[in-house]
Amino acid sequence: MTLDFWFDFGSTYSYPAAMRIEGLAMRHGVRVSWRPFLLGAIFKAQGMSDSPFNLYPARGRYMWRDLERVCQSEGIPFRRPSQFPRNGLLAARIACWYSDAAWLPQFVRAVYRANFQDDLDIADASVVARCVTAVGQNAAEVIGQALSAESKAKLRAQTDEAARLGIFGAPFFIAGREPFWGNDRLEQAISWHAEHSSQAAISPDAAT
Amino acid sequence: MTLDFWFDFGSTYSYPAAMRIEGLAMRHGVRVSWRPFLLGAIFKAQGMSDSPFNLYPARGRYMWRDLERVCQSEGIPFRRPSQFPRNGLLAARIACWYSDAAWLPQFVRAVYRANFQDDLDIADASVVARCVTAVGQNAAEVIGQALSAESKAKLRAQTDEAARLGIFGAPFFIAGREPFWGNDRLEQAISWHAEHSSQAAISPDAAT
Repeated sequence: MTLDFWFDFGSTYSYPAAMRIEGLAMRHGVRVSWRPFLLGAIFKAQGMSDSPFNLYPARGRYMWRDLERVCQSEGIPFRRPSQFPRNGLLAARIACWYSDAAWLPQFVRAVYRANFQDDLDIADASVVARCVTAVGQNAAEVIGQALSAESKAKLRAQTDEAARLGIFGAPFFIAGREPFWGNDRLEQAISWHAEHSSQAAISPDAAT
Repeated sequence: MTLDFWFDFGSTYSYPAAMRIEGLAMRHGVRVSWRPFLLGAIFKAQGMSDSPFNLYPARGRYMWRDLERVCQSEGIPFRRPSQFPRNGLLAARIACWYSDAAWLPQFVRAVYRANFQDDLDIADASVVARCVTAVGQNAAEVIGQALSAESKAKLRAQTDEAARLGIFGAPFFIAGREPFWGNDRLEQAISWHAEHSSQAAISPDAAT
């Protein structure tokens, strides 16, 4: 059993979660399954044409201040992007196709840093290419594969799965069937997973 | 300087916050200002005709599960109300008019318990009357005063103030000018307040 980490590259609170999850998971012996999806498609299906943080300006203003505090308290560098939300489609296709690659977590963090530390446009293929190169991979090859029909279909299917699972925001964690929404719930999701997966691992032996 | 606690009697996450705030504030030497308002009016001004938890069912389903976990981890009894959101107008008028009364925090908790532990309709004046009686006050007198024109105007003005302050959800805490949204942020709001109000208290002396 893995802890499913659902994230969107444009999502603000996914940023601290993406920066924190691998270290926390390792310390608790939890395996993470990286599940990129397109939050914008979920919003659209709910009748929202933009992020709620843009549709409801008071909510947006609060979020930027809160995110700044969250990052500060976690020691995560943060600069408010000049554009929000940014289109993470290409990066998401890469992360979805190569979700099991050893370099994937590092690539994900590189893209988040580009967006939320360096204020770079992650919709720009050259920005994404630099993130691929930074983790020691061949950018032309990886991006070419990400733009293939099967890669596009995989991300579409994964976004459909998110909707089917009742995911309505990001970051979202699922441990077994237990849902946790938001960077604030990351520790709880990991504890829940560690507790319930060890029970699952112990039970068969206990029964014999 | 007080920590402003903005709450709505129908709001789900306001419930654990209302049950917890007085004990936490006392331990940190923080004075709480109880600020009831009508969240429904804020939603309406934003174009929402109902709670987002009803407008977006996936969000609502998650909220009920999460609230159950929050209450469980805090040792707060919880039963999902058969109706949501309940109309807390009368209770809010009382809490607004009598916001400085010594019995107010106890009254607020009694109303929240009626809604979220006993599944009683807090729109019903007899339910509210029992909450008033439970804190040793004369129900006819208190409710009569709450229904006066000046009491109605006071709650309207307070709800307008919430909107002006950028409050878009409940519970909401304001320490000085620093905003904190959600039961999850209660501890942070109290720490922030304790730290900054003691600085304010110390600075004049330090300057002399």
